[in-house]
Amino acid sequence: MMQTPLTMTQMMKRAEMFFPKKQVVSRTASGIHRFSYKQMAERTRRLADSLTKLGVEKGDRIGTLAWNHHRHLEAYFAIPCMGAVLHTINIRLSPQHICYIINHAEDKVLLVDPDILPLLEKCASELHSVKAFIVMTDDKELPETTLSPIYHYEQLLTESDPNYSFPEDINENDPAGMCYTSATTGNPKGVIYTHRGIVLHSLALGLADGGGISERDVAMPVVPMFHVNAWGIPFAAVWFGTTLVLPGPYFTPKLLAELIETEKVTITAGVPTIWLGLLKELEAGSYDLTSLRAVLCGGSAAPKGMIKTFEQKYNIPFKHAYGMTETSPLALISTLKSYQDKLDPEEKLEIRSKQGTLVPGLELKIIGKDGEVAWDGKEMGELALRGPWIASEYYKDERTQDAFHDGWLYTGDVVTIDEEGFVKIVDRTKDLIKSGGEWISSVDLENALMAHEAVFEAAVVAVPDAQWQERPIACVVLKEGFKGKTTKEDLVEFLKPQFAKWWIPDDILFLEEIPKTSVGKFLKRTLREQVQKEVQK
Amino acid sequence: MMQTPLTMTQMMKRAEMFFPKKQVVSRTASGIHRFSYKQMAERTRRLADSLTKLGVEKGDRIGTLAWNHHRHLEAYFAIPCMGAVLHTINIRLSPQHICYIINHAEDKVLLVDPDILPLLEKCASELHSVKAFIVMTDDKELPETTLSPIYHYEQLLTESDPNYSFPEDINENDPAGMCYTSATTGNPKGVIYTHRGIVLHSLALGLADGGGISERDVAMPVVPMFHVNAWGIPFAAVWFGTTLVLPGPYFTPKLLAELIETEKVTITAGVPTIWLGLLKELEAGSYDLTSLRAVLCGGSAAPKGMIKTFEQKYNIPFKHAYGMTETSPLALISTLKSYQDKLDPEEKLEIRSKQGTLVPGLELKIIGKDGEVAWDGKEMGELALRGPWIASEYYKDERTQDAFHDGWLYTGDVVTIDEEGFVKIVDRTKDLIKSGGEWISSVDLENALMAHEAVFEAAVVAVPDAQWQERPIACVVLKEGFKGKTTKEDLVEFLKPQFAKWWIPDDILFLEEIPKTSVGKFLKRTLREQVQKEVQK
Repeated sequence: MMQTPLTMTQMMKRAEMFFPKKQVVSRTASGIHRFSYKQMAERTRRLADSLTKLGVEKGDRIGTLAWNHHRHLEAYFAIPCMGAVLHTINIRLSPQHICYIINHAEDKVLLVDPDILPLLEKCASELHSVKAFIVMTDDKELPETTLSPIYHYEQLLTESDPNYSFPEDINENDPAGMCYTSATTGNPKGVIYTHRGIVLHSLALGLADGGGISERDVAMPVVPMFHVNAWGIPFAAVWFGTTLVLPGPYFTPKLLAELIETEKVTITAGVPTIWLGLLKELEAGSYDLTSLRAVLCGGSAAPKGMIKTFEQKYNIPFKHAYGMTETSPLALISTLKSYQDKLDPEEKLEIRSKQGTLVPGLELKIIGKDGEVAWDGKEMGELALRGPWIASEYYKDERTQDAFHDGWLYTGDVVTIDEEGFVKIVDRTKDLIKSGGEWISSVDLENALMAHEAVFEAAVVAVPDAQWQERPIACVVLKEGFKGKTTKEDLVEFLKPQFAKWWIPDDILFLEEIPKTSVGKFLKRTLREQVQKEVQK
Repeated sequence: MMQTPLTMTQMMKRAEMFFPKKQVVSRTASGIHRFSYKQMAERTRRLADSLTKLGVEKGDRIGTLAWNHHRHLEAYFAIPCMGAVLHTINIRLSPQHICYIINHAEDKVLLVDPDILPLLEKCASELHSVKAFIVMTDDKELPETTLSPIYHYEQLLTESDPNYSFPEDINENDPAGMCYTSATTGNPKGVIYTHRGIVLHSLALGLADGGGISERDVAMPVVPMFHVNAWGIPFAAVWFGTTLVLPGPYFTPKLLAELIETEKVTITAGVPTIWLGLLKELEAGSYDLTSLRAVLCGGSAAPKGMIKTFEQKYNIPFKHAYGMTETSPLALISTLKSYQDKLDPEEKLEIRSKQGTLVPGLELKIIGKDGEVAWDGKEMGELALRGPWIASEYYKDERTQDAFHDGWLYTGDVVTIDEEGFVKIVDRTKDLIKSGGEWISSVDLENALMAHEAVFEAAVVAVPDAQWQERPIACVVLKEGFKGKTTKEDLVEFLKPQFAKWWIPDDILFLEEIPKTSVGKFLKRTLREQVQKEVQK
C-alpha cells in the first residue's frame, strides 16, 4: 500500500474540490454570515499566507482565543495545514492560567476575538513569546488596545495570496493542534494532537456507529471551539462537506433553538448545561426542531430525566458520549445495539444514560482492586484507554507520569462495565468539580484559601446544581484569633482577583474541623454529605 | 498521540468483546450454519494455533481457494492476526494461472473447499512451496484426493488451543493479505494489502458517506471472498459487529432472494450480472426485500435501466461503486449530494449511473492529453488514484512500472468528471473484456489463437451481453492454405485446455483482414463496431 500520510490538508482539499457550494453559517458579533466552502478554502489559504509573512514556521504554536465562528474555522485548517500548531485557548480560564498556557506553549502569534482583548491585556506584559496579535473582528477599524504589534484579520487576508500552496512535506505524526486541560492541582496541562490523530478521530465521527456525520448533515457544535476542538466536529464536517452552523459568542438557549429551526440543524453537540437551557426554552417557546437527528451530549453525565424529556416529550434523539481533552475526545458513545431495541423503554433509558460502548479504533481496560474488572455492571475500576487518537503525554509536563502508564491513559474516572460493554462513570479518582461543562479544581481553591492569614484549613467540595451540574462550596476552619471576625465576604473578596468569576464558591461554611482519613487527608466524601445537608437546610 | 498501530487484531477483538452474541449466517455445501461472533472468535484463535503448529510463521503466505462461508471468514482473521498473509485465490482462473499464482506467492499452506480439490490436483505436481493442504469440509471424513499432506479443517480445530494469543508485535505496514488480478497480457499480477490499508478501508466502508456499514446492518457480500476481499465487507462487518450472511457456493438468484427475505439483509454487494439475475428472479417470484437499504454494485458499470428498475419498480436503493484489486477496492461511490435531491428523477438517475465521487481518505487526478482535465463531464483522461489503501506496486512484478508513476496508481480507466465531481468511466486504456465481473484478457486469447498453425492473425473484442455485461468474440484471419478447412470448432477445441471455460469466445468470425492503425496496431474500436454489426445480423 502507498505510504501516503494521513494529513488535514487532504481533508481541507476535499471540501474545496468536491463541496465548494456547501455552506458555513457563522454568527459573529455583527450577525449571521454565510460562506461557501469555496470561499472558506480561499480565505484559509490567505490566512496561511498571512501567517507565513508574519514569520510563522513549521512547528510554531499559534494560539486562538475565540468563539465558534468562521474565522476560527479558517484558523482550524490554515494553521495545521501550513505545518504549524493550532493552540486553542480556553477563554474561560483565569488570566493567570491563560498567561501560563501561552507562555508554556510559547505561542508565536495569537488570534483573538475583540471581546477577549481586555482579558489578554491583563497579562500582556508577561507574554514573552508572542510576536503578533491578530484581531478577528467584523469592524473595519482595529479596536483600541494596549496589545502590540496588532493586526486586523480581514486586512491581512486582503493583502495575502489566495493561491497559497500548503506544504507537501507534512508527516502524519507532526503536531497539528494542542489544548490545555485543567488539572486537579496546579496549572493546566497541555495535550498535543497530531494530523494522524485528527484524521482518524474524524473518521470515527463519520462512522455510522460513531457520530455518523455526513454531507447530508447540518452540524452545529455548541461546545466551544476552545474545548478539545469542539469535539472534532469542525474537522469532520469540513472533510465530509457537511453544512456547519457556528453559533458565535454569548448565545442564549433561545438563539440556539432559533438556529436549529431556521438552519434545519440535524446534529448538535454540547454539555448537559446547554441542553438543560434548551429544554427550558422549549417549554417557554414554540419551535420546530424536527430536523434534529442527534443531540450529542458529553463533558459530564446527562441526568436520565433530561434524556427522557428530549426523547419522549420532544422526540429528539439524544446521544450520550464520553471523552476528555486527552482522548480527542470521542472514546465512548451510547448507541443501543440492534437487539436492545426490544427492551422496554425504562431499560433502554437506563442503558442510554451510561457513557456508552467503545468507538471502533480504540481499546479499553478497566482496572479494579484485583486487576481487570468483571463485565457485570457492578465491579468498579479505573477506565484506561489506548489508541491512535489518545494522548501519550502532557506537553513538557512532569504530570505525564500520573496518567500514562504502560502505553495506556488512565482517565481518573471510576467506572463499571455491563455484560454488553456499556461503561458507566460512578465516581472520580480525583475530586474535580464540574460546573457547566468546565472543571473547577477544588485543590486550587483550597490552596488559595489556606494562603489567607485567617484560615487554618479549607476544603472545597461539589454540591449538585440543577443548572450547572455542580457548584463548589468551601468549608473553612478559622484560626482561633479570627473566629467571628473574618467573614464569608472577606474570603470571597480575597479569592476574586485570583480566579475566574465562576470558580468562586457559591458559599463558604465555617466549620470547627474538617473530617479526615487516618493518614490526615480530607475525607471528601463525608464532607460532601455534611455540606449537602447544610445546604439543604 | 499514542503510536498504537492500526491492526486487524483490534478489529477481531472488538467483535469478540463487544458483540459476542451477534451472528454469522453461513451457507455451506450441507446447509445453513449459524455461528455467534463468540464462537467465530474462538474458532479463529484455534485456526491460528493450528497453522502455527503446521509451521506457519510471520510473513508466510497462506492461500485460500474457497467460497463465501464461515470457515473462509475465520481464515480472513486468523491468518493476518497471527502475522501471516491471507492470499485469496480466484478459483475461476485457469489451472495454469492458479498454479502460477500459488508458486509466485510461494504459498506455504492452502485452505481449500472440497469441490475445488480436483482443480488443484491438476497442478499439484508443480506446486513447490506448499507444505500442507487443509480441506474446509462439513463432512467428518476427508474426501478422496491425491493432494498430500492433507488435513481436515475441523479436526485441526478440535486439536487446537481456544485461548491462542495473537502476537502483539504486528506493525501496521506489515502485509495482511494479497490478491492477484488478471492482466491484459501474461500472468495475473499480485497486490499486497497491509493491516493499515485494511483498517482504513474498513473505516471508509463504515462512514455514513462511504458504505455506512454498522452494527445495525445485516450484510451479505455476494461478491466472492476471492475477489478483493469481498470488497472488504467481511473485515468491516466483523469490526462493527454487523450480522454477516455468507451465501456459500453455487447460489442461484432464487437463493439470494430467499436469503435477503429470511435473514432480513440490509446491505448486499456484487457485480451487475448478479443483480440482473436477481431482477429476473423478482419478476418471476414474490419476495419481501423491504429490509434492503443498499445494493452496492461494482466491478463493471451497471446499466441505467437496471438502476431504474431496482429503485422505481422495487423501491430498493441501488448504489454504484468503483474500485479495483489495486484499490482495496472502494475508491468512488455514487451518492447524491444533499442539494441534488431536488433534481428531477432522470437527472438524478444520470448522476447515479456514474461511478461516483471520491471516498474520504483518497485523492484523485484525471490526466488528459494536456494535463489535468476540466471538471465539465466531457474532457476525457485517465483516472489516477492515491491514498493509504491504494497499492504501491505489483508483488515482485516488473509490470509495476506500467501502472505506478510518481506515487500515483494509473487505473487504465478513461473517465470524465463533472462539475460536481462525479466520475464516469467512458473507456478503457487497455481492452480487457469484463464478463460477469471477471476480466478476460483479449491479448491472452489472441496470443493463444495466433499460436495455432492455421491462424495468420487474430483479434478478440468484447460485445455487450445482457447477462454477462460483455462476452469475447474472436476475429481470425486464416493462413491461405487453411481457409475453408479449419473450422470454428477446431479453434475452440484448441483453446479449451488453455483457458477457463468462460474465457472461450462466444463466437469466432473469419475475416479477410483485421483493421489496423498506421503503426500496425489493431484498431479495436473499429473492429468492435464491425463485430457488433456481424453479431446483430
